[in-house]
Amino acid sequence: MEDAFMRTLGLEVRHLAPGEAVVAGVVGEAHLNLHGTAHGGFLYALADSAFALASNSRGPAVALSCRMDYFRPLSAGARVEARAQEVNLSRRTATYRVEVVSEGKLVALFTGTVFRLEGNAFPGSGEGLPSGQNAWRKEEVEG
Amino acid sequence: MEDAFMRTLGLEVRHLAPGEAVVAGVVGEAHLNLHGTAHGGFLYALADSAFALASNSRGPAVALSCRMDYFRPLSAGARVEARAQEVNLSRRTATYRVEVVSEGKLVALFTGTVFRLEGNAFPGSGEGLPSGQNAWRKEEVEG
Amino acid sequence: MEDAFMRTLGLEVRHLAPGEAVVAGVVGEAHLNLHGTAHGGFLYALADSAFALASNSRGPAVALSCRMDYFRPLSAGARVEARAQEVNLSRRTATYRVEVVSEGKLVALFTGTVFRLEGNAFPGSGEGLPSGQNAWRKEEVEG
Amino acid sequence: MEDAFMRTLGLEVRHLAPGEAVVAGVVGEAHLNLHGTAHGGFLYALADSAFALASNSRGPAVALSCRMDYFRPLSAGARVEARAQEVNLSRRTATYRVEVVSEGKLVALFTGTVFRLEGNAFPGSGEGLPSGQNAWRKEEVEG
Repeated sequence: MEDAFMRTLGLEVRHLAPGEAVVAGVVGEAHLNLHGTAHGGFLYALADSAFALASNSRGPAVALSCRMDYFRPLSAGARVEARAQEVNLSRRTATYRVEVVSEGKLVALFTGTVFRLEGNAFPGSGEGLPSGQNAWRKEEVEG
Repeated sequence: MEDAFMRTLGLEVRHLAPGEAVVAGVVGEAHLNLHGTAHGGFLYALADSAFALASNSRGPAVALSCRMDYFRPLSAGARVEARAQEVNLSRRTATYRVEVVSEGKLVALFTGTVFRLEGNAFPGSGEGLPSGQNAWRKEEVEG
Repeated sequence: MEDAFMRTLGLEVRHLAPGEAVVAGVVGEAHLNLHGTAHGGFLYALADSAFALASNSRGPAVALSCRMDYFRPLSAGARVEARAQEVNLSRRTATYRVEVVSEGKLVALFTGTVFRLEGNAFPGSGEGLPSGQNAWRKEEVEG
Repeated sequence: MEDAFMRTLGLEVRHLAPGEAVVAGVVGEAHLNLHGTAHGGFLYALADSAFALASNSRGPAVALSCRMDYFRPLSAGARVEARAQEVNLSRRTATYRVEVVSEGKLVALFTGTVFRLEGNAFPGSGEGLPSGQNAWRKEEVEG
């Protein structure tokens, strides 16, 4: 399930379900910044990977806009996990919250929105999704 | 000037001056996502690296909150550059805008804010500014 | 507890405790945009008010950077509530998540970070920072 | 051109062209927060109004995700202007940068992304925009 970039960073998928995902990694020497702590880009890549898996579980989607808030630095050797949950699922967009956690502490918070490439395909609307793909969409909204 | 994570991703500093930086890279096979395009985390790491260099040019600083807007996908082999500019410099925080560009097109836009660890200490000003010398500090801004 | 802008918009504080706040309002004709639904600025002002109350409950703080994700439109007459919770509290910054809810549905999600003007003071929290950690904060700022 | 909420806040449109807009206002006593400065929600509403006008100039659009960075406080009586410019225009989404300026100084920076409700209406695709309206759409993207 891991893509090439995740493999490059040693990231592993721990959990994947409709609208959610957990990805884990370890801060290595190759992932440090000039302060000697985990590079902001490494932590973001971890969160972004969980976000991508969670959002693509709803059908193909591409990231539009993401926010990353950093709370604490991590040293080399730290184990860290990104836990993505769906906050909103609409026809053409969806938003996810990803908590980046290490040793039980919140290290960073990621919020991301995707554009859903086949978002208009809704069974109820007669646009024809294969039926297995839409159990989840119950809370569909707007007009 | 490159840190460990930048080296891991093959990123190079092209320009560095007070409040600004340019970092360049090439999208490799190791940087792709499941769609076969540059991983959002790779592009963010590129932008974040320019942001870190630009902000730390004002003294030690740590990222607080960043936003990344994605506009177009990049394929393997694409050359890409992140150009960071200072938008605001205050005593304890500073904000940067980073344009991610490939072949003359805007690929993504990054906006990031740092907390300045020694916010009152200004290089070259002899640290610990007498109160009269702060007039400039808020609207530092571009050159 | 309401400030002038909250009164202008008819917003009321429903709950206030350390690190959290709930603010409520009603979408009036005066708050609509050209689409005839609640103006994005009105919903943001509601969320921002809860954020300000929650963050200032920890001592004086000013907003640095906020994100607002919009999920559904609201019509005139809709009752709406913003519920702010603390996501992270550090010495000099803090981050809050604010859910904007109407009729049990998530209308928008706000994420905001403040700079804490007297950041080292943790009244009543008894979390007891080792005193040595405050040395740096000498350059305390504006009042 | 002003909507109901803009009139409530005394905001005026100063400029409107495809992909850009300028909105102006004055910080009144009714717009202050508990610190006695312009409420963050008032400044956001100003920026958001310019963003809405600029984005809707391309056809109907709704806000998805916005960021507001605050740089300096404004006192009652201050004149303030929000200047929106298009950063990216794609088929289904568009992103704008809005500078909030007072007395020549950057007070805040807003970045916002919209979903374009009729985004697929492209002349080249036979969906019929009057041809004069689309010189801009040159960089159409995605896959």
